[in-house]
Amino acid sequence: MAVEPSMSKRLAAEFLGTFVLVFGGCGTAVLATTNKEVGVGWLGVSLAFGLTVLTMAYAVGHISGGHFNPAVTLGAAAGGRIAWRETPAYLATQVVAGIAAGAVLLVVANGLDGFSAQESGFASNGYGDRSPMGYNLLACLVIEVLLTAVFLWVILGATDSRAPKGLAPLAIGLALTLIHLISIPVTNTSVNPARSIGVGLFAGGDAIAQLWLFILAPVVGGLIAGFSYATLLGDEAAVSLPEAMEA
Amino acid sequence: MAVEPSMSKRLAAEFLGTFVLVFGGCGTAVLATTNKEVGVGWLGVSLAFGLTVLTMAYAVGHISGGHFNPAVTLGAAAGGRIAWRETPAYLATQVVAGIAAGAVLLVVANGLDGFSAQESGFASNGYGDRSPMGYNLLACLVIEVLLTAVFLWVILGATDSRAPKGLAPLAIGLALTLIHLISIPVTNTSVNPARSIGVGLFAGGDAIAQLWLFILAPVVGGLIAGFSYATLLGDEAAVSLPEAMEA
Amino acid sequence: MAVEPSMSKRLAAEFLGTFVLVFGGCGTAVLATTNKEVGVGWLGVSLAFGLTVLTMAYAVGHISGGHFNPAVTLGAAAGGRIAWRETPAYLATQVVAGIAAGAVLLVVANGLDGFSAQESGFASNGYGDRSPMGYNLLACLVIEVLLTAVFLWVILGATDSRAPKGLAPLAIGLALTLIHLISIPVTNTSVNPARSIGVGLFAGGDAIAQLWLFILAPVVGGLIAGFSYATLLGDEAAVSLPEAMEA
Amino acid sequence: MAVEPSMSKRLAAEFLGTFVLVFGGCGTAVLATTNKEVGVGWLGVSLAFGLTVLTMAYAVGHISGGHFNPAVTLGAAAGGRIAWRETPAYLATQVVAGIAAGAVLLVVANGLDGFSAQESGFASNGYGDRSPMGYNLLACLVIEVLLTAVFLWVILGATDSRAPKGLAPLAIGLALTLIHLISIPVTNTSVNPARSIGVGLFAGGDAIAQLWLFILAPVVGGLIAGFSYATLLGDEAAVSLPEAMEA
Repeated sequence: MAVEPSMSKRLAAEFLGTFVLVFGGCGTAVLATTNKEVGVGWLGVSLAFGLTVLTMAYAVGHISGGHFNPAVTLGAAAGGRIAWRETPAYLATQVVAGIAAGAVLLVVANGLDGFSAQESGFASNGYGDRSPMGYNLLACLVIEVLLTAVFLWVILGATDSRAPKGLAPLAIGLALTLIHLISIPVTNTSVNPARSIGVGLFAGGDAIAQLWLFILAPVVGGLIAGFSYATLLGDEAAVSLPEAMEA
Repeated sequence: MAVEPSMSKRLAAEFLGTFVLVFGGCGTAVLATTNKEVGVGWLGVSLAFGLTVLTMAYAVGHISGGHFNPAVTLGAAAGGRIAWRETPAYLATQVVAGIAAGAVLLVVANGLDGFSAQESGFASNGYGDRSPMGYNLLACLVIEVLLTAVFLWVILGATDSRAPKGLAPLAIGLALTLIHLISIPVTNTSVNPARSIGVGLFAGGDAIAQLWLFILAPVVGGLIAGFSYATLLGDEAAVSLPEAMEA
Repeated sequence: MAVEPSMSKRLAAEFLGTFVLVFGGCGTAVLATTNKEVGVGWLGVSLAFGLTVLTMAYAVGHISGGHFNPAVTLGAAAGGRIAWRETPAYLATQVVAGIAAGAVLLVVANGLDGFSAQESGFASNGYGDRSPMGYNLLACLVIEVLLTAVFLWVILGATDSRAPKGLAPLAIGLALTLIHLISIPVTNTSVNPARSIGVGLFAGGDAIAQLWLFILAPVVGGLIAGFSYATLLGDEAAVSLPEAMEA
Repeated sequence: MAVEPSMSKRLAAEFLGTFVLVFGGCGTAVLATTNKEVGVGWLGVSLAFGLTVLTMAYAVGHISGGHFNPAVTLGAAAGGRIAWRETPAYLATQVVAGIAAGAVLLVVANGLDGFSAQESGFASNGYGDRSPMGYNLLACLVIEVLLTAVFLWVILGATDSRAPKGLAPLAIGLALTLIHLISIPVTNTSVNPARSIGVGLFAGGDAIAQLWLFILAPVVGGLIAGFSYATLLGDEAAVSLPEAMEA
């Protein structure tokens, strides 16, 4: 990297990317799926979440590494791609950005008469009777841990020094689309505590009571992948994430 | 850039790209969503708008920078990627191309017995009782300003000298798909005055009376992003948009 | 180009690519849209056609240029990207491949009791009462000429020496998806005489009587774009199509 | 290739990629298509299968070549891209990974009251009365052989030394999406014995009795393409698959 961006610019990039992830992904779920004739369904929501990461990683990945997700930051630290001492600022920025996105989304959603964040669920994650199709806690725990681990293995592999330059944001963004295609019916898909907190706070009640799972499971999954990557798949090839997303 | 294309070729590129954006995006909305069994819905319209920019930016972005949108041209000028003195010719060409696309689309749409641009809405943008789902003016204003700003941050970031070469049209096109996934229910998605004017004139009546919002909000959003990019995210790395889309 | 592939290999590449285009695109329309609950609709058919070109242009574009379409071959010749004397062999190969794909598709489709190519339409193109939504001849003519011209402008621009290396198949394939999103309701989308002939022969009757439009209009559109590209958009930058798709 | 990864890392990469392919593709089919209002349909399943290969080939293709499929491994050996003596370990790993993915998917699917792998079909492949739309054996045989051959021609062509660097995973992944768009109605799409075995064992009964077709046909298709590639399309240009997916 010629000149490393300052920490304030890296945090601005993380704020912007996380804001777009939560506003874009959850916004599509809240605004564009209620019309059953032309609405975009789970397929559109899956595409939207993936495109938030694809586009923002191309836009600002070369500045901050394009994490936009506390589980990614912790997994990247476990995999040696970011210093542990830099993670608290990243994590705090991501959570604040997620809540800001939830708040702006609420302003927009309230522009429709009769909208209620609590009644609609506001794209919050859930298990058991709050799972979109009613999956139990075990299924929800397994799928969140597993898919976050897969997400991190894709991130660490696609930004490996041996991987093709410039394509990592494509692979990582579309991995998030894939993850949503599988798991929206189960948990409404978290794999990202900032996304879960950002809308869960406004959905209120049981959505908040269930947040623990969508903080714990993604972090565990991310750490498993981060700590195992070098041993399983590669140990000579790590590069910092921002560097991997540069020209 | 080895040899800079002449202004007449740059304007031809902008005309063609804007024509395809309006004809392709609005054409999909007008022609391909009325059949409820196999029609493409808002997901297909979102994909179509994004693919117009993706494909035309690869086709002619290396000639003109691939703006196809007055809000992009003004945001790019604010971000230092195009000279202010070149913007009037770009803006005029984009608006004329948008209207030409609307006119040709009307010829095609009239090939179906009983079609009326005014009754169908002709893919025009709207707020309040003309919003697809009925969102009020505040929600429509917020989402158009915000999403145009996001669009410009993606454009300026993905064409930054540090970003991977050659992938900017992919990121920018798919950002427009994302923007439509979120906001078709709210305003039918503008983020582009040339698109709004191009079909709004033919939809007539209230569609014209509401055009002010879809000129004002995208321009404000684009300028906010353009003026803030250097301070927020990067200041050493600007390149001209055509150069960023070259080999 | 280090070593130019032999003409027999170039024709094998065109045969294979055109076969996949017709079998894949029309196959999706014939096999995967009749189930109204989970079928893929026009959106799936649009995606399928685009992906045939995207994948086959990456697979064999470096051998033959990845035309897979007589209108592309003639437009490329008009634009100076292939020698006129080479076009007859390309055109003949594409038409034969289209018919072969139609024949194999018929074998598969007949594996379902009660299937009739003539009654189902077999993904053939049509205007007037054979237009999917009933568009008249003028609308069908305009849209086929216009969209084939757009397709060729994208092809010539994205393979221009100034365009990013390696991304042309992505842009060209997704342009075909865009074209289908707009125009399946109008003509079932041709922009490719080999595709129209390949299934039209098996649909029989009026499908054959209407083939003239889907030969004439794409060829006219392709030639318009091919002859105008240099003047409108660029004249110093032509490269052969296979060379543009190489590493 | 600077340093060739050890066989244990290559097998870990194949295990992970095949696991994600089966869990992600079949998982989407099992979990996300039963809701008819917002479910993802065959289009979502097609996209999911393609994205498993796209993302995992970017993530670990530079380690193992990104086969994730016994038919690909055998076709690649026939095409001279991997040594025959290395194939048994690849094949065994892929089949074990497919079964592991099926087992974990069963744990998740069982998190919904009343789920039965046998009654739901568990995304297994089938012909005749087990074909999704009821296609007979001949149609199912033809389409599995043909589409696996197409898949291998795409793989061998897109990783040819003349093909653009870094884009092969995109082309190969989206080829698998295309293949599913065409053929889910016919066989539920195999082209991959590990995928068929991985869920077929848990679907039980007739699903197991029909597995022979989904082992035989993909292998035959893969070998046809592998042995014919050099003669038909290119003979000077073979590179190993992992090398083709490197930076």
